[in-house]
Amino acid sequence: MNSYKELEKLFREIGALEEAESILHWDMSVMMPAGGAESRAEQLAVMKSTIHKMLTDPYLTTLLDEAETDPPVNLWEAANLREMRRSWRHAHSVDGKLVAELSKASSRCEIIWRDARPRNDFTAVSGSLSKVVELVREKGRSKASGIGVEPYEALLDQFEPNIRITDINRLFDDLAEFLPNFLDKVLTRQIAVGGFIKPEGPFNLAAQRDLAAELMERVGFDFDHGRLDISLHPFCGGIPDDVRVTTRYEENEFAQSLMGVLHETGHAMYERGLPVDWRLQPVGRARGMTLHESQSLLVEMQVCRGLDFLTFAAPLIQKAFKGKGKAWLPENMEKLQRHVEPSLIRVDADEVTYPAHIILRYRLERALIDEELEVSDLPSAWNEGMRALLDVVPNNDRNGCLQDIHWFGGAFGYFPTYTMGALAAAQIYSAACKANGNITSAIAEGDFMPLMSWLKENIHSKGSFGSTDEILVGATGIPLGTEDFKSHLEARYLN
Amino acid sequence: MNSYKELEKLFREIGALEEAESILHWDMSVMMPAGGAESRAEQLAVMKSTIHKMLTDPYLTTLLDEAETDPPVNLWEAANLREMRRSWRHAHSVDGKLVAELSKASSRCEIIWRDARPRNDFTAVSGSLSKVVELVREKGRSKASGIGVEPYEALLDQFEPNIRITDINRLFDDLAEFLPNFLDKVLTRQIAVGGFIKPEGPFNLAAQRDLAAELMERVGFDFDHGRLDISLHPFCGGIPDDVRVTTRYEENEFAQSLMGVLHETGHAMYERGLPVDWRLQPVGRARGMTLHESQSLLVEMQVCRGLDFLTFAAPLIQKAFKGKGKAWLPENMEKLQRHVEPSLIRVDADEVTYPAHIILRYRLERALIDEELEVSDLPSAWNEGMRALLDVVPNNDRNGCLQDIHWFGGAFGYFPTYTMGALAAAQIYSAACKANGNITSAIAEGDFMPLMSWLKENIHSKGSFGSTDEILVGATGIPLGTEDFKSHLEARYLN
Repeated sequence: MNSYKELEKLFREIGALEEAESILHWDMSVMMPAGGAESRAEQLAVMKSTIHKMLTDPYLTTLLDEAETDPPVNLWEAANLREMRRSWRHAHSVDGKLVAELSKASSRCEIIWRDARPRNDFTAVSGSLSKVVELVREKGRSKASGIGVEPYEALLDQFEPNIRITDINRLFDDLAEFLPNFLDKVLTRQIAVGGFIKPEGPFNLAAQRDLAAELMERVGFDFDHGRLDISLHPFCGGIPDDVRVTTRYEENEFAQSLMGVLHETGHAMYERGLPVDWRLQPVGRARGMTLHESQSLLVEMQVCRGLDFLTFAAPLIQKAFKGKGKAWLPENMEKLQRHVEPSLIRVDADEVTYPAHIILRYRLERALIDEELEVSDLPSAWNEGMRALLDVVPNNDRNGCLQDIHWFGGAFGYFPTYTMGALAAAQIYSAACKANGNITSAIAEGDFMPLMSWLKENIHSKGSFGSTDEILVGATGIPLGTEDFKSHLEARYLN
Repeated sequence: MNSYKELEKLFREIGALEEAESILHWDMSVMMPAGGAESRAEQLAVMKSTIHKMLTDPYLTTLLDEAETDPPVNLWEAANLREMRRSWRHAHSVDGKLVAELSKASSRCEIIWRDARPRNDFTAVSGSLSKVVELVREKGRSKASGIGVEPYEALLDQFEPNIRITDINRLFDDLAEFLPNFLDKVLTRQIAVGGFIKPEGPFNLAAQRDLAAELMERVGFDFDHGRLDISLHPFCGGIPDDVRVTTRYEENEFAQSLMGVLHETGHAMYERGLPVDWRLQPVGRARGMTLHESQSLLVEMQVCRGLDFLTFAAPLIQKAFKGKGKAWLPENMEKLQRHVEPSLIRVDADEVTYPAHIILRYRLERALIDEELEVSDLPSAWNEGMRALLDVVPNNDRNGCLQDIHWFGGAFGYFPTYTMGALAAAQIYSAACKANGNITSAIAEGDFMPLMSWLKENIHSKGSFGSTDEILVGATGIPLGTEDFKSHLEARYLN
């Protein structure tokens, strides 16, 4: 067997273990009783260090060196080899012991956070978070020297390959300049146009679940290859052939959960649409979190919060909750969905104020990694940042620095991809609608096929064949920028 | 670090991966959508072959050799070293490729069986079962030469260490001589005594679930360290710190599911009671399936189907289903529970006819492994066997050779442990009641503490410190025999 083919075999095993790890992580968040936490932390740590050992095995290194001297002619195989080296580089630049320690510390911290958040108790989790930050700093430094970038960039690179601080700053500075002024205009106009009518609850939880599942299927979700469950922090987990969406329901509000489910369904469709021929190979994976978030935000923000989709969905929603009156008309629903208001919770934020939440987290996590901020000062830094960016101040840490799972689960360098994803979503949706004039009219009839076919062909099925910008150029003609996002905001909020 | 301590470290990692595998297997049976089957089969196969590689790593072999030349003085460490060698021997006697192939074939066959069973379609699964049998035969031959026993004994040894065909024959022949005559007496007496009144349904499924959970807690089950869910084939899975019981509910019958849950809770209590200090080490595991089944059958058959427990439980059951009349009295419930009738389905069988079901499976699986029977002849061999042993003949394969998951999941050599477990259950419960006179009176008040404390001290906490017979001798004074079981049957069914 030649070196490349032998590598495919080894990476297939690594891929299967990563899939197993993903299911275990889903179980930890959705099914596991509290008393299983310590054992699960150890299982995940051993899984991670086993994968790390496989990636750093000298035999694999030899095979990579050999394969690169005589690289495959097939372009997908060549791209796969490049992605193998990328995985290798990330693994090689950290010590196996650190991998296991960080995995354990993150699992533990995440579990403590789950309990501390509803109790609004930052002190209960700050010790474990400090431990996580300390280990992530070490990982950042270690990967930085291996990859040849800044520590924070090395962390970013895990979620979005090759992104640099200057790239993020360019995009974020543009938004930071555009948004405050735009927000003022939107808020002024909002008052002039008048308010929406809020549909009255309670909204039966089983009806919420059934409606969510029905709309997921409309988007294209296949329940033979996935599930919908409940978890504290909604996410899309699992694996491409068994992709698992979670949400949480509240009796007095349905839209947030429903839009959350549709968001996660966008992620799920990306996973399902990845190239089947490259399952378990590095090139068969999602390109990065920018494109991943673009797919969830495209479904949620571009499509499902828009009038076309709501024209189709409003009667279904009304029927599900046996609603009566004007509150259930598509026009009112759309007004409700595009209501803008600076607020405390990122996941509940509208798309105009959302980037400010991300800019705050981006600044804070950079400061944490660069040792310019310590965990003990996080609550006050958070509150000051909120005041400066959105002029709202959390009344407690639950609505402040305790709200997101990411840092407590060890994910630093992830947040910027949400806003980059929002930019990409606008850019991709605009291109899709230009390429196929039937997309929006089909959506108004609840038919996502034209959109999903285009997305599958132009984004999902590309896996990690090209870079994010290469895939974007192929799909939209240009690399990631802010123009389509700004046009989208202007069209939706000012016209 | 000395060799033994280094082995502890390696086996702890192996143990964590085995725990991960166990959770993935639970998920496959309880949560996974059908479309995830192929991927899951691959994940489990890679997990298994990764564990196999770790166990057959030359470095581990060297450490074992070294540790055995200078074995630990501490008795638990010495027992742990012995169990490490046992794991090593099983791993070393099969090829890694076979391990992965069998894992995949079993996962696939189990999935096909899940669909074929309700459809009563043996043909749909016979091809995959043949593949599994072929690979299990190969495993049997391979392990047999490594361990120095017969192929079927090598398979038995995976579930019940050191058991030999002659041991099983001695116990089973004794029962085969005792039972037919005893069964006649029971059936005659049953007619004389008169029938029971069957409580009338439907029995609300949520009420069944709540009642089951309430009684599980009475037995001592801690929902902070476990779950209760639904699966096609009830089982107890998970890990000691997160032990997961499954059942299935039917609207027109509650007792079978309820007794099944209590059975699995017996398994769960064993897992929970294993020595905490030896978690993830070979010596910290359950000794074998004979003792495991003894713990489930002790809770179900010895305790929960008896009058003491039913005196406590009958009012709770009545309340759960809002029942009225004599059918709900403890005496009637007990009569119902000790009703004996030769029937087709093992899991529904009473304890008098149960051993015949096991003897059939024992004969058939030996014949399959010894290549004296082929899968294509299984349905007819099954039906003939049922006629000979219990004088009942399945009307279809669903009620015949398709009823049990074991073979389809690759488990050959497991069945005998059910009846050995029944013998051990009678022996252990008899000893427990002699040792502590308060056990039965406490149970009549729904208090399992005295029983569970005794079991934890004398069985659960022993882990794999001694052999099955050593643990039995310690707890009951004698090795595994048939006398207490026969006395139990006579006391319950003829007095």
